[in-house]
Amino acid sequence: MQTFASTSQEDHLTSTAHRHTTTAPASWSLHPDRALPADTALRPLAREIYAATAGLPVVSMHGHVDAGLLADDAPFGDPAELFITPDHYLVRMLVAQSTSRHGAPGVDGVHSLGVSPVGSAPQGTPAAETDPREIWRRFCAGWHLYRGTPTRYWLEHALVDVFDAPVAPSTETADELFDHLVDRLARPEFRPRALFEQFNIEILATTDPAQSPLVDHARLAADGWGDRVVPTFRPDPLLHVDRPDWSDHVRALGEAAGADVVGYASYLDALRSRRAAFVAAGARATDHGHLSADTTPLDDADAARIVDAALRGEASAEDAAAFSAHMLFQMASMSAEDGLVMQLHPGVLRDHCGEVVRAYGQDKGYDVPVATEYVHALRPVLEAFGHHKNFRLIAFTVDETSFSRELAPLAGAYPALRLGAPWWFLDTPDGMRRFRETATDTAGFYNTSGFVDDTRAFCSIPARHDLARRVDAGHLARLVAEHRLGLDEAVETAVDLAYHLPKASYPRPGA
Amino acid sequence: MQTFASTSQEDHLTSTAHRHTTTAPASWSLHPDRALPADTALRPLAREIYAATAGLPVVSMHGHVDAGLLADDAPFGDPAELFITPDHYLVRMLVAQSTSRHGAPGVDGVHSLGVSPVGSAPQGTPAAETDPREIWRRFCAGWHLYRGTPTRYWLEHALVDVFDAPVAPSTETADELFDHLVDRLARPEFRPRALFEQFNIEILATTDPAQSPLVDHARLAADGWGDRVVPTFRPDPLLHVDRPDWSDHVRALGEAAGADVVGYASYLDALRSRRAAFVAAGARATDHGHLSADTTPLDDADAARIVDAALRGEASAEDAAAFSAHMLFQMASMSAEDGLVMQLHPGVLRDHCGEVVRAYGQDKGYDVPVATEYVHALRPVLEAFGHHKNFRLIAFTVDETSFSRELAPLAGAYPALRLGAPWWFLDTPDGMRRFRETATDTAGFYNTSGFVDDTRAFCSIPARHDLARRVDAGHLARLVAEHRLGLDEAVETAVDLAYHLPKASYPRPGA
Amino acid sequence: MQTFASTSQEDHLTSTAHRHTTTAPASWSLHPDRALPADTALRPLAREIYAATAGLPVVSMHGHVDAGLLADDAPFGDPAELFITPDHYLVRMLVAQSTSRHGAPGVDGVHSLGVSPVGSAPQGTPAAETDPREIWRRFCAGWHLYRGTPTRYWLEHALVDVFDAPVAPSTETADELFDHLVDRLARPEFRPRALFEQFNIEILATTDPAQSPLVDHARLAADGWGDRVVPTFRPDPLLHVDRPDWSDHVRALGEAAGADVVGYASYLDALRSRRAAFVAAGARATDHGHLSADTTPLDDADAARIVDAALRGEASAEDAAAFSAHMLFQMASMSAEDGLVMQLHPGVLRDHCGEVVRAYGQDKGYDVPVATEYVHALRPVLEAFGHHKNFRLIAFTVDETSFSRELAPLAGAYPALRLGAPWWFLDTPDGMRRFRETATDTAGFYNTSGFVDDTRAFCSIPARHDLARRVDAGHLARLVAEHRLGLDEAVETAVDLAYHLPKASYPRPGA
Repeated sequence: MQTFASTSQEDHLTSTAHRHTTTAPASWSLHPDRALPADTALRPLAREIYAATAGLPVVSMHGHVDAGLLADDAPFGDPAELFITPDHYLVRMLVAQSTSRHGAPGVDGVHSLGVSPVGSAPQGTPAAETDPREIWRRFCAGWHLYRGTPTRYWLEHALVDVFDAPVAPSTETADELFDHLVDRLARPEFRPRALFEQFNIEILATTDPAQSPLVDHARLAADGWGDRVVPTFRPDPLLHVDRPDWSDHVRALGEAAGADVVGYASYLDALRSRRAAFVAAGARATDHGHLSADTTPLDDADAARIVDAALRGEASAEDAAAFSAHMLFQMASMSAEDGLVMQLHPGVLRDHCGEVVRAYGQDKGYDVPVATEYVHALRPVLEAFGHHKNFRLIAFTVDETSFSRELAPLAGAYPALRLGAPWWFLDTPDGMRRFRETATDTAGFYNTSGFVDDTRAFCSIPARHDLARRVDAGHLARLVAEHRLGLDEAVETAVDLAYHLPKASYPRPGA
Repeated sequence: MQTFASTSQEDHLTSTAHRHTTTAPASWSLHPDRALPADTALRPLAREIYAATAGLPVVSMHGHVDAGLLADDAPFGDPAELFITPDHYLVRMLVAQSTSRHGAPGVDGVHSLGVSPVGSAPQGTPAAETDPREIWRRFCAGWHLYRGTPTRYWLEHALVDVFDAPVAPSTETADELFDHLVDRLARPEFRPRALFEQFNIEILATTDPAQSPLVDHARLAADGWGDRVVPTFRPDPLLHVDRPDWSDHVRALGEAAGADVVGYASYLDALRSRRAAFVAAGARATDHGHLSADTTPLDDADAARIVDAALRGEASAEDAAAFSAHMLFQMASMSAEDGLVMQLHPGVLRDHCGEVVRAYGQDKGYDVPVATEYVHALRPVLEAFGHHKNFRLIAFTVDETSFSRELAPLAGAYPALRLGAPWWFLDTPDGMRRFRETATDTAGFYNTSGFVDDTRAFCSIPARHDLARRVDAGHLARLVAEHRLGLDEAVETAVDLAYHLPKASYPRPGA
Repeated sequence: MQTFASTSQEDHLTSTAHRHTTTAPASWSLHPDRALPADTALRPLAREIYAATAGLPVVSMHGHVDAGLLADDAPFGDPAELFITPDHYLVRMLVAQSTSRHGAPGVDGVHSLGVSPVGSAPQGTPAAETDPREIWRRFCAGWHLYRGTPTRYWLEHALVDVFDAPVAPSTETADELFDHLVDRLARPEFRPRALFEQFNIEILATTDPAQSPLVDHARLAADGWGDRVVPTFRPDPLLHVDRPDWSDHVRALGEAAGADVVGYASYLDALRSRRAAFVAAGARATDHGHLSADTTPLDDADAARIVDAALRGEASAEDAAAFSAHMLFQMASMSAEDGLVMQLHPGVLRDHCGEVVRAYGQDKGYDVPVATEYVHALRPVLEAFGHHKNFRLIAFTVDETSFSRELAPLAGAYPALRLGAPWWFLDTPDGMRRFRETATDTAGFYNTSGFVDDTRAFCSIPARHDLARRVDAGHLARLVAEHRLGLDEAVETAVDLAYHLPKASYPRPGA
């Protein structure tokens, strides 16, 4: 950390143009105490607690890394393709500060970071920037925008610790960094499987469509990696009968299951069949990303009527909402049978800006949390399966008001429910701290899932787990320093949160 | 606090089985600085502020201790009966981690901690464990589950400070502790009245049904304890016309009031009569635990119609909701007449799991907060009585989002409204800290009620008041250290919060 | 800071009567480190960061100071008129602790602080206290009520730093302070323009009705102050067709615009005309204070039908709600044309107590936040104009649950949206800290507006800006101490938040 020489007021009043790009320090490193509490009464304790977890293997039980990446084990592409274009955290911040906006009703920004328009994009939609170096420069010029954000923290860790980057990003250093990264990416020790080993990953769960043939997982198994990379059953598009592509997904489901879906019964059978295939391929869990957490079941007759209507292309929006809730109940019921842990990620309104979807497609960073109710919503599933010996539900949220009010009280009562780690917008140093401060009172530590990274950025996995361990160490250090917990208990709890709890929260079905 | 010897990574990866039970320190004591801020700039200030309140008498103006306990002054039962079976905070955590769950749709857990099935329980419901030593062992084996929770903090205080327990609970120490407690409970100085004196309780308010003849309070008064133990008027079951047992409660009300309840007018008269009896018995307050905070009054004709329908067993759910809101308004109106402070505890959905209720009855730990609205809900009562010289409303919440947004702004405007202490799931070190940080800006300190323990665990009363004093001392210390308050002001405020404000918030009617 | 001599328990138990007024320290000053973190690891860093912003000019882009005050440049009135009667923050706290309440259904309190009943007040409404010294004494006697509140912090700053007050307020010092302030207020250096210079204000935005002829701004411009004091276009009463005075406002609008409003088209034209007049007078922004953030547009035919109905006095409540949302969309559309920044301040239920309004009029401190939804509400405007190069929306909130859940994710995606500074009930040391801790993760620093004071208390402007700079310095210091940000970056960010961002967030239209 560099000391800032005192600056005259006049300096502060000069134009901000290019100001933000000139302050990169001459060298770049990670401080060993980063993200630990600064308080002198806490830091030594936090260091000691963190030391017990720093070297533990990474147990990554939910995320979005592509299994093909590890099956192929091909070199990563260029720095823009690796770090920028597919990272909607990163892209959205640059877009939000876009200064090259054109006139209404236009959309700008994402194309300049390499995101391509869809085929049906309105005429005049700007084409994607194709020069990775140019994309990288744009990102480097906006490095100051990430100050205080987890994106900054994770990137710093990945660039310094994984890629040995010599300087922080800035307009001046962009080309040097780009060339450095290109050099590293060409080396064998930067291929996916080598990094997997280097990251000390014990097990990595991917997320896969219900109809996926799991070919990449089979290739990994053939290479002896079957226990290290496991699939997760994600049937979302199949459970929303009002999606335009629902019937396409249903057709693919039937093909994968080897039986035509012609009504509700064959629809459930096909899902059951695919779940069994996932279990056979090593899956530990399912994953469900619904707007609402509602789990209210329908009568079978109503469910069958809706499936029939949907197969004719006639399901209403009301039907769709009721059916998606019904299917969460059915998924819980199947989990109680086959033992796949059920993960629920509700409360995110996807693709807030229709104009962006029309031009560039879904999942371009315009996802926004909404207030989410859990107490009534989860009641049907918890009353039915909340004490079932074979059922495990892990509930996530991006509405942090629910931690102390709803989720911790529920997880602190029902044996089947665990409270997932702070998710997405809350997977940050302060978000994780607030999670522990609001959830622990009622749920304790042992009704939480342990850390879950949920990332699609493979190279950020070590950063994310390391950060969670640091934040938990800081929280536990405070409990010790306030004489609310012994240091030995704190160390043991830290190890459980980092390693034992994620493993225990996602057991092998039938184990 | 014991220093943890560095542990090799291998150790951390061994099975967790029994691990949690081997770390009990050799001796057990309470640190004098517990729950004070660790920050070296704050702790000395916090110590000085806390020192001014540590010895103040306990003013316990709302709780659920049974008056019969003190009227009888008989020895407490065994350790399981005293500490475990009736404490739904404690039971729920062990149930949430139950590993001996049986197949769906079964319920397990609570019986193993001594909770008995109801007579109408479904066949196959496990019977209650009856061996107190076995129950105590189960609790001790789960001691690690309470890490970071207020239950852990309170129990530690009660066991060490009240019962002089020699070691922390663990599988290994369970029997030793059990025998120690049995020995203490047999001694005269551990009888309820002796503990009452030892706890330095100045006044204790119990909570009593409207139809209670207050016999125990009369016995206490006859022993000269009438000013030390006072009743609180709680008419909840009478205000919810859709409860199956409503007519039973109404009949009992009529009997207690000495006049048959045959319609709305006699119903109100009987309530008024019982309120007067409570006032005569020393009551300071009423208490109302509704799901919603709604206080919208009905026309008298509508209210009368609903009571008539309810007496015929024909009230609808809509009627019931409207009538319970109406009756909160009526209770406010009566409070403005007779001077009983009105306490409102809304926003908890009771008995979330119907299956548990059917097997073991109500109030077994499955209570969960819901989002609660106050601004529109309280408006009828506040517009009508919010400036009434004889009216006092103390509003509690388990939805902490309402502190900065709704309750502090309302309490910082209406003279009749005070904001109650953090309640139930929020009565924790961090919950209390967040309460001061979010409520004080707009309500100040003097529109809050001072500390209210709301406990049914008699032996935890000193722990709860002591903890509140420590947390408030920490909050005030920060204001002093940030030069936002003088130390003399902070000490004076701490004393007010601990002693003068609870007394002033619950004045004797007519005082 | 004075050390508090240890006090015996007996002292603490004596009556509180007059206790609160005897602890004023002998002299009064502001600590140079006030509101900086106390933590020894943070304070030196916070000091260094704060030092870079302490002397920066004040950019006050949204507030409620009367332009006439500066146009006239007459001496301020007496201390009660300056500090107490018009300050609803301050008045509400004294009213909330009113002990001289009379019987229901009476209203007390505000009159005793100089607030006059309206002409139509019910018979028996107490007349306003007219003796400023008496009002001042009442305030001084209640000084302890403000402990821990921002009102206390701001007043302390203004009294000590601006008015050189020799002692803190108390019953004993009230007269001395009153006389001191009267003396200062008579001096030329305490006239508004002299204070404006002394406060180092670079630019001050007032808030003005749409129909305002902006006479005071013209006088200021004639004096060469046109760039220093700029108007803000606030059309609220014109956008709510169910207000009893809507037609009066519409008539005044027509007069100001020089064209009769006879229907929807002429209504829009008149608004456009006034916006142009505001732009010509130097305005940077509009301001909209709606209960809901809804921006859903109507068909033109529906909008026209509602205006016609309203002109006949026949608009329904449903019409009014739909039309106010529609008009927010129209205001956004006009902002995209004329470049006025659009400010939205939703979510406050004004005038909660009808009885107070009937007796003393609107805006007497009974305003209360309500839960406010932004994700669906702002969607129409953001989809239409969220990427428009000429549109800027600054959204404020008093519902802090929306920071991490809704507003930061929206502001961190849409280029047109900035997240306003913590507003009203959240404009406090802890509120500002929580804002940075919850909003920065997703929005960063550069999608926020920088500090906005929103005050009508001219003499508190320096205190408010200084406090915001201190709190931001503390937040940034923590990031530096936790090695999440370099000190040089933190200093640069602090300067941006205090100075560059407010300027950049409110650009001159067309700039």
